[in-house]
Amino acid sequence: MYLAFAGGVGGAKLALGLSCVLSPEDLLVVVNTGDDFEHLGLRICPDIDTVTYTLAGVANPETGWGVRGETWNTMDALGQLGGETWFSLGDRDLATHIERTRRLQAGETLSAVTGQFSKKLGIRHHIAPATDDPIRTIVNTADGPMLFQEYFVKRQCAPVVTGFEFAGASAAQPSAAVISAFDSGKIEGIIFCPSNPYVSIAPIIAVPAIGDFIRDAGVPVIAVSPIVGGNAIKGPAAKIMRELGRASTALAVAEHYRESVSAMVIDTLDGADADAIWALGMQVVVTDTVMKSDADKTRLAGEIIAFACALPRNR
Amino acid sequence: MYLAFAGGVGGAKLALGLSCVLSPEDLLVVVNTGDDFEHLGLRICPDIDTVTYTLAGVANPETGWGVRGETWNTMDALGQLGGETWFSLGDRDLATHIERTRRLQAGETLSAVTGQFSKKLGIRHHIAPATDDPIRTIVNTADGPMLFQEYFVKRQCAPVVTGFEFAGASAAQPSAAVISAFDSGKIEGIIFCPSNPYVSIAPIIAVPAIGDFIRDAGVPVIAVSPIVGGNAIKGPAAKIMRELGRASTALAVAEHYRESVSAMVIDTLDGADADAIWALGMQVVVTDTVMKSDADKTRLAGEIIAFACALPRNR
Repeated sequence: MYLAFAGGVGGAKLALGLSCVLSPEDLLVVVNTGDDFEHLGLRICPDIDTVTYTLAGVANPETGWGVRGETWNTMDALGQLGGETWFSLGDRDLATHIERTRRLQAGETLSAVTGQFSKKLGIRHHIAPATDDPIRTIVNTADGPMLFQEYFVKRQCAPVVTGFEFAGASAAQPSAAVISAFDSGKIEGIIFCPSNPYVSIAPIIAVPAIGDFIRDAGVPVIAVSPIVGGNAIKGPAAKIMRELGRASTALAVAEHYRESVSAMVIDTLDGADADAIWALGMQVVVTDTVMKSDADKTRLAGEIIAFACALPRNR
Repeated sequence: MYLAFAGGVGGAKLALGLSCVLSPEDLLVVVNTGDDFEHLGLRICPDIDTVTYTLAGVANPETGWGVRGETWNTMDALGQLGGETWFSLGDRDLATHIERTRRLQAGETLSAVTGQFSKKLGIRHHIAPATDDPIRTIVNTADGPMLFQEYFVKRQCAPVVTGFEFAGASAAQPSAAVISAFDSGKIEGIIFCPSNPYVSIAPIIAVPAIGDFIRDAGVPVIAVSPIVGGNAIKGPAAKIMRELGRASTALAVAEHYRESVSAMVIDTLDGADADAIWALGMQVVVTDTVMKSDADKTRLAGEIIAFACALPRNR
């Protein structure tokens, strides 16, 4: 069994690939909840929704987030009423937030709601939030601290980042599916999808029991670099790395992950970094990591699983 | 200055007519809130919205409620997720409920929100809820008590009605605009629009200070019968009257309103009831009350105001 830690668009793409090469009982997609926030009275879970829509085959292929063939009539009418429209919520997408909010307020867990929505959308594989406890990623910037979505969407990643905090993480427990996977003894590897190390993967590992498992359980941890040729495929990862005084390179991602990751998957464009990553004591695979087509996703997922099978286990 | 007490579709039609013959400072549309309810985590105010959309010229002409050119993508997606879809909320309409709920939760009054939405939609006349305090119409039926929308929409008015309660009414204060109108000494008349006497007008009068004003202030109160030719133009008024052991006639409406109303406007189809209504001690006008076109609405409104001007005042 493999655990795939995922953030939004890049994570969802690899999760879809993994769902094509692994059977439902052999994959658990563990999704970042640090991006979650309350907006317009609704609980918005951007990464869970991106992963869910992607695995359901209804994701918007142009944006990566939201659903295909979306309409925007509620947002348009909301703008006319003077409401807040900086965070775009499509009409079909809104149903997810409305129904999730209602169920959470009725006492259901985020895990339960996520699982039920998956089933309703015909997804056979398991998607779970890293935790059902509230975690909120705070972006510390030169303009002061702000919630992730304020930084990411409202401010368009413009503020200069000085660091991150994951409010609530130290008290958070892993979700039931994650605990069950940890306790099963069946985990063959953990895959960090090519998601932002700072704001997608870090909030997951910040849950103490998850960080402890990563460090202590002796299962291979394989990270796919979200940095390709010096830039992120999508999102602010490269900008953040530079603002934190690091190079925006696959090597710098490996250095960042050094304590928790045993092997890196980097792009052929970054092949020159392979020796230096090896020198950090990590295994490394160099391959095409940019997932444009579904075939790309499946091929990359297959290569990662093949690589993971060959890695040494310390158990 | 005139106050128009209104429920949903019929009330909104006459309110639109009145807004064509009266200037903004001479009309306050006082809207029933007994139909309001919480649904999907949102505060839904069906009558306020129907009146607002109608006066804004964006109402759906086919249904009378909701907005013109509406789409239903959120509801469709909600159904796919297993959510509750018995109460249809269009995509544009949803913005109203989302933004209203957010503002109410932020501490604004329903009056303030209603006023702001009116302005944003370009309405020059004033629309106010009867009260900012929560009133909920409970329909007592042979199947037990139920909230109005459960009776009206979910059960399609099928249960046999035995009576009504207006939870919260006895402790409710009129909204600020209503109090201000009462205190102004400028009210020339109060018009009960052709709305359901039991579930649209009664919850307004159930606010003690409103009922007291109606009885004590000596201003003419003119009710337009919602029963025409033995039936309601829309809604369950006639069915309810029969279930309560009354005839579904304009005369029975007059008898019901006897304590609070000084004059009735009835349809030419019900001209035979005029003498009996007169015998109850009420003035009566017989005219065409069915409002199909905007011209019908304006003509009826004009006749009512002309009639009101000629009524004796007891001040």
